[in-house]
Amino acid sequence: MKVIKRVESMAKITKDRILKNNTIGFIATMGALHEGHLSLIQKARDENDIVIVSIFVNPKQFSNAQDLKKYPRDSQKDGSFVEPFVDYLFVPTEQEMYPSDFHTSIAVGDHAHDLEGEFRPGHFEGMATVVHKLIAICQPTRTYFGLKDYQQFIVVSQMVKDLNMKTKVIGVQTVREASGLAMSSRNTQLSREEQATSTLIYAALQKAKELIQNNIHNPRVVEQFMTSELVKLPKSKIEYVAVRTLKLEKTQHIESDIVLLVALHIGKVRLIDNIIVYNK
Amino acid sequence: MKVIKRVESMAKITKDRILKNNTIGFIATMGALHEGHLSLIQKARDENDIVIVSIFVNPKQFSNAQDLKKYPRDSQKDGSFVEPFVDYLFVPTEQEMYPSDFHTSIAVGDHAHDLEGEFRPGHFEGMATVVHKLIAICQPTRTYFGLKDYQQFIVVSQMVKDLNMKTKVIGVQTVREASGLAMSSRNTQLSREEQATSTLIYAALQKAKELIQNNIHNPRVVEQFMTSELVKLPKSKIEYVAVRTLKLEKTQHIESDIVLLVALHIGKVRLIDNIIVYNK
Repeated sequence: MKVIKRVESMAKITKDRILKNNTIGFIATMGALHEGHLSLIQKARDENDIVIVSIFVNPKQFSNAQDLKKYPRDSQKDGSFVEPFVDYLFVPTEQEMYPSDFHTSIAVGDHAHDLEGEFRPGHFEGMATVVHKLIAICQPTRTYFGLKDYQQFIVVSQMVKDLNMKTKVIGVQTVREASGLAMSSRNTQLSREEQATSTLIYAALQKAKELIQNNIHNPRVVEQFMTSELVKLPKSKIEYVAVRTLKLEKTQHIESDIVLLVALHIGKVRLIDNIIVYNK
Repeated sequence: MKVIKRVESMAKITKDRILKNNTIGFIATMGALHEGHLSLIQKARDENDIVIVSIFVNPKQFSNAQDLKKYPRDSQKDGSFVEPFVDYLFVPTEQEMYPSDFHTSIAVGDHAHDLEGEFRPGHFEGMATVVHKLIAICQPTRTYFGLKDYQQFIVVSQMVKDLNMKTKVIGVQTVREASGLAMSSRNTQLSREEQATSTLIYAALQKAKELIQNNIHNPRVVEQFMTSELVKLPKSKIEYVAVRTLKLEKTQHIESDIVLLVALHIGKVRLIDNIIVYNK
């Protein structure tokens, strides 16, 4: 595994690889890598000639300076963790990614004010912009995103389609702890007690799924049920609970496949999770 | 010259060309081609293995429905005009460029509300978005823009740099009628009389340039002078007159290279022009 720090060096490598007709698998991360990232990387390894992983804690997608500051960073540990599976680890500096005259931003539909966008102003513009930059530099054949950040997956897919970008965006199943808690870099910030109670998030999603499978078709009823389950968590504060179509559109009646989403704080840690319910 | 209508076909051709290590020169147009476009095309011809010209009247960059409707369209004539110099003429449909679920837009700095942006709300977002799409489809080594649309050239250059897009943006000198009037697709909409008076625009820019060369360093004085010259044009309505740095920043004192810009209506036709004054 080669560690690449300069944008220009990374771009040159990918250009050469493309001229050799190599396929490139790419995973954009903010570090603090865990088994969830590893599942993306292994899928990329299986499906491509070379694998590039980027680590860049993108300041433009944090709406909260405190959250940015306390975001876990340990590039040494991250590097060792993924080394067996990765050809290039791309770790650009903030100065190279955002020089002082940087001025461009990408907005994707109404996501700026919906779900995550409502509680994290500017998040999706910042995320879409940096993902565009990383894709343009690494020119991947396939780009892998975890479905845990479902809205991010939708926003990136839409951007890539709308802007005719040359990569295939692939969503990868959420990896969970044995307890059901979705893997997240933020989980390390939870106390042991909070970790235990957080397992109820996935349990609530599962129970809601059963409700739908038992022919409850009113999304408001399902949302109210999820809320009533989640308020049982000690020290929790719910931000949103939502039943949406797979394109994240609102719906009045559950008839096709849908996604159940939740965002909440447990103590000082913000967690999100979702599951897809297939309605055959 | 091959005429390509489908986005997918164009993308496949450029992909194959890139694998052959061909260089690609690209010119995005809205048709109604004239000598100004031809100078871009000939430069592209000189500097690249293949030349792609696109014709797409982009509805998203018109703030005025009437202006969009009366924009001249004659693809037959355009095709014959450029055929000797062009390998691929790309004429996508509106439906393929903007399917019904299209949702993405690109904003570049403060240009949305400055100069052209002030008088054409949404123009630069629409222009930047379509230029991104065309560049992503055609993957040019070099992309050529006329300096007549100076702010467009600056916005595209900034977008390409900020988003790490793989093309070199090249500005090409404005081509003028013998009278000095900058070539424009809109000139055909001028009456004979209006064409004659429009020549005073370039004359005013030239006189302002002389003023600067005669050591007038106050941009406000130069702007007032240009205005006083332009109000002499019959049936004219000035939108803006500006003295700016080459990056289009405002300045209090003319000391380095600057650009003089003007936008005005002559009768029902909106015209823009500019000249660069090098201050050595």
